[in-house]
Amino acid sequence: MPEILGHNFIAGARSAAGPQRLQSLDASSGEALPYSFAQATEGEVDRAARAAADAFGAYRQLSPLRRAEFLEAIAAELDELDDHFIAIVCRETALPSARIQGERGRTSGQMRLFAQVLRRGDFLGARIDLALPERQPLPRVDIRQMRIGVGPVAVFGASNFPLAFSTAGGDTAAALAAGCPVVFKAHSGHMASADLVACAILRAAERTGMPKGVFNMVFGGGVGEWLVKHPAIQAVGFTGSLKGGDALCRMAAERAQPIPVFAEMSSINPVIVLPGALAKRGSAIAQELAGSVCLGGGQFCTNPGMVIGLRSQGFSQLLDALGQHLQQQPGQTLLNAGGLRSYSAGLEHLQAHAGIAHLAGQPQAGQQARAQLFKADARLLVESDPLLQEEVFGPATVAVEVADQDQLRAALLGLRGQLTATLIGEPDDLQAFAWLVPLLEEKVGRILVNGYPTGVEVCEAMVHGGPYPATSDPRGTSVGTLAIDRFLRPVCYQNYPQALLPEALRDGNPLGLRRLVNGQWREGAI
Amino acid sequence: MPEILGHNFIAGARSAAGPQRLQSLDASSGEALPYSFAQATEGEVDRAARAAADAFGAYRQLSPLRRAEFLEAIAAELDELDDHFIAIVCRETALPSARIQGERGRTSGQMRLFAQVLRRGDFLGARIDLALPERQPLPRVDIRQMRIGVGPVAVFGASNFPLAFSTAGGDTAAALAAGCPVVFKAHSGHMASADLVACAILRAAERTGMPKGVFNMVFGGGVGEWLVKHPAIQAVGFTGSLKGGDALCRMAAERAQPIPVFAEMSSINPVIVLPGALAKRGSAIAQELAGSVCLGGGQFCTNPGMVIGLRSQGFSQLLDALGQHLQQQPGQTLLNAGGLRSYSAGLEHLQAHAGIAHLAGQPQAGQQARAQLFKADARLLVESDPLLQEEVFGPATVAVEVADQDQLRAALLGLRGQLTATLIGEPDDLQAFAWLVPLLEEKVGRILVNGYPTGVEVCEAMVHGGPYPATSDPRGTSVGTLAIDRFLRPVCYQNYPQALLPEALRDGNPLGLRRLVNGQWREGAI
Repeated sequence: MPEILGHNFIAGARSAAGPQRLQSLDASSGEALPYSFAQATEGEVDRAARAAADAFGAYRQLSPLRRAEFLEAIAAELDELDDHFIAIVCRETALPSARIQGERGRTSGQMRLFAQVLRRGDFLGARIDLALPERQPLPRVDIRQMRIGVGPVAVFGASNFPLAFSTAGGDTAAALAAGCPVVFKAHSGHMASADLVACAILRAAERTGMPKGVFNMVFGGGVGEWLVKHPAIQAVGFTGSLKGGDALCRMAAERAQPIPVFAEMSSINPVIVLPGALAKRGSAIAQELAGSVCLGGGQFCTNPGMVIGLRSQGFSQLLDALGQHLQQQPGQTLLNAGGLRSYSAGLEHLQAHAGIAHLAGQPQAGQQARAQLFKADARLLVESDPLLQEEVFGPATVAVEVADQDQLRAALLGLRGQLTATLIGEPDDLQAFAWLVPLLEEKVGRILVNGYPTGVEVCEAMVHGGPYPATSDPRGTSVGTLAIDRFLRPVCYQNYPQALLPEALRDGNPLGLRRLVNGQWREGAI
Repeated sequence: MPEILGHNFIAGARSAAGPQRLQSLDASSGEALPYSFAQATEGEVDRAARAAADAFGAYRQLSPLRRAEFLEAIAAELDELDDHFIAIVCRETALPSARIQGERGRTSGQMRLFAQVLRRGDFLGARIDLALPERQPLPRVDIRQMRIGVGPVAVFGASNFPLAFSTAGGDTAAALAAGCPVVFKAHSGHMASADLVACAILRAAERTGMPKGVFNMVFGGGVGEWLVKHPAIQAVGFTGSLKGGDALCRMAAERAQPIPVFAEMSSINPVIVLPGALAKRGSAIAQELAGSVCLGGGQFCTNPGMVIGLRSQGFSQLLDALGQHLQQQPGQTLLNAGGLRSYSAGLEHLQAHAGIAHLAGQPQAGQQARAQLFKADARLLVESDPLLQEEVFGPATVAVEVADQDQLRAALLGLRGQLTATLIGEPDDLQAFAWLVPLLEEKVGRILVNGYPTGVEVCEAMVHGGPYPATSDPRGTSVGTLAIDRFLRPVCYQNYPQALLPEALRDGNPLGLRRLVNGQWREGAI
């Protein structure tokens, strides 16, 4: 394993121009770890963004197969990261080693999945309208279209996924797949982990002959603003708080050239438990739900922060049982001290609200987070009370008991945009409540039936997105292969000679793509 | 033909709640035409947006085939609009009747093309990842994805395409195809035309049984702000000035729930004439270029506002000949008095600039626009002088003579984002200047070889878009079938029973789609 230098990664080299060093901390004890990191200067951020811009032309023009080889080389390097690496990530995040081992596999798997997308080639969106010289009243000339990368992408790592949503995480994989060099802003919560992963990416880049500057990484507070405002940056990927995401969106919109920001921000992920399921398996649901609420210290974007049911003995029993499970949960160390402060503040806001009652959960004490269950008056949801809509990042959930189907509808209409919504129901429930499906479709990015929203599969059909404030742009996803679309834009070639056309659009179809030719999907040459 | 009532179109009915009437004017004479229009009140805009929201649920859930029937019914109604209609459009816009007849065909053709997209079904983006119950270490559940409309769309009509980019124009067609009801803001320059087209849309909606509120239209100044800020509106389509588009983007970004704005704004569409072509056919190029500059009074987004060449006798001769052609052009009546004022102001700014010389063109006088040729110092482009980057909407173009290939590169790098760039060259030119292609790919939405940018084909492969300030989002197009993508977002269905799934995602594949199943494209049932 390489030494953890703690220098910024710029154009394939390391740089520590400024005087300030940042310390990596043990998440459990708060002690300083023996790693420190060079706070990037404005000049270094500028150089990193320029390095990405310099790499863009060559990198985006590599064949998709060459980019696939790069992603696969990154995957192989990630798989090689050893137990010592795992131990460092665990110390920085207080996450258990089994989770980090799993996340390492998820992260390399994600790279390989995007490599498959590159090999398949449909992300190029190749379209050809052949010339119609005889058309009346005017002939049509030859017109072809494909998608290219938007340019250098700034990616902000998430606190809660030190691997899968950080340095070599989903946004980085999607951007690199799209042909966009990356400038990554390391999260302050796991800088040593980030350093080791960035070294792995650089090894892969060297091994596969990628242009210098295809991947860059900067450390430090405040560098994000320089990055988002840098003229070379053409898009932003972010996973974090609503406040942080909103601020980046504002900065990006106020640039001389505004750029898109794909921010995954805040979701309370309602779980709706229907009567038949309550009657048949309420006790199992309480246990499963408690598990989902507490998984990973509740530090998932898809944590079920709201449980909704129709007023009934069954729902009261569910809440009793859920409360008992949460009451019994041991304290959990969160990712960092800031996370614990936010969680405690979120609980205090809920506790202070007249329409919200505390049902279960041991008092917060010391450095660990305790699971909590609250119950809110359904009218708060109907009236879109902002407090109820705020994500409390940690092992807490709020129950909402509605009087009847009408109030259920009104309550759900009062919800803001969400990453997920979940229906727990028996077949009869789902038939009786079929009206929920179209309503939820308009509110969320993913609807689950008889499952729990934590655990986001990385696959072709996943959507980890949704209407604001779940994300800043509901037309994207940050998990799954459709994530590549965020970083692509179409270019049209009119009346081009064959030799000048990109390979994807040549008559002979050397990339073997399926293309839309004169409005029909066709394989092979023209 | 129906009477031109001049009332707002709300939920399938007409409304004129406010006291203020707006007058339609004859574009050539400035005289009042016998049609007046009810300035929409804030209450009417609210009702129109709510009507669209009320229609959304039912409309988006119609099968794509039913929506295709609606678009085809609109197309048929447009084709039925008679000579009396054409005469009214001509009076409101000063455009010749042959152009308006052609535009009517283009507008109905556009509707039919989107109907084909709906019948093909690939816009749904259906993806299925089947459950893998045996997978280790964790099983995978069934996960499916398709795209749905984003919600009600506000569309702003363009002044320069009273049919193809107005009431039933490209943005309306794309939004309706995507399943999004529309609230259209009629352009003040052709309100009578808009009224008649809206009546045609309503007839088509009634005939095909569409929900009330699928299409709404409001008249008046200031109503756009109410519309963009209305919470029911989920996206905006706009074609117009940079100032107007920027203002809408700001409003949309500052909403409690920010929404995307697809604004097509400002482009100077450089035409680069290469040496071999100059030598071989300079005189023909001068004539063709003059035709493109003056087409439709120069009132096209794709008007060639800049001609770039390498310093040479050939390029000087081209400019001489181009100047003579433009000098000889008769005056042209523009779309409206405001357009003429803007054009004159644009010319004055160019004339007042020390680095820009006037080469040819008769002085502006009276109510007609005269074609003009200017020449700018190439350093202005290299240094990104803002004046050179501003679109002058009318029959004017600016020549830029560069010293050599290095200065050509520097000048093009100084260009802001564009809708188009054009290369005029012989085969040897294109080989010698092949480096231009990747450079231009990063600057523009469409690159043409040996053609002129005016004349935008409505087809599958067209891109009428490009980096800012050409548009507010380079990932979209406002012409061609890819335009539908702007108004769609993905939704994911996890572990869904077959009966609850949308038809597009059911195992039996009742819509006959080609779907991405476990990472492979498949037709037929699963």
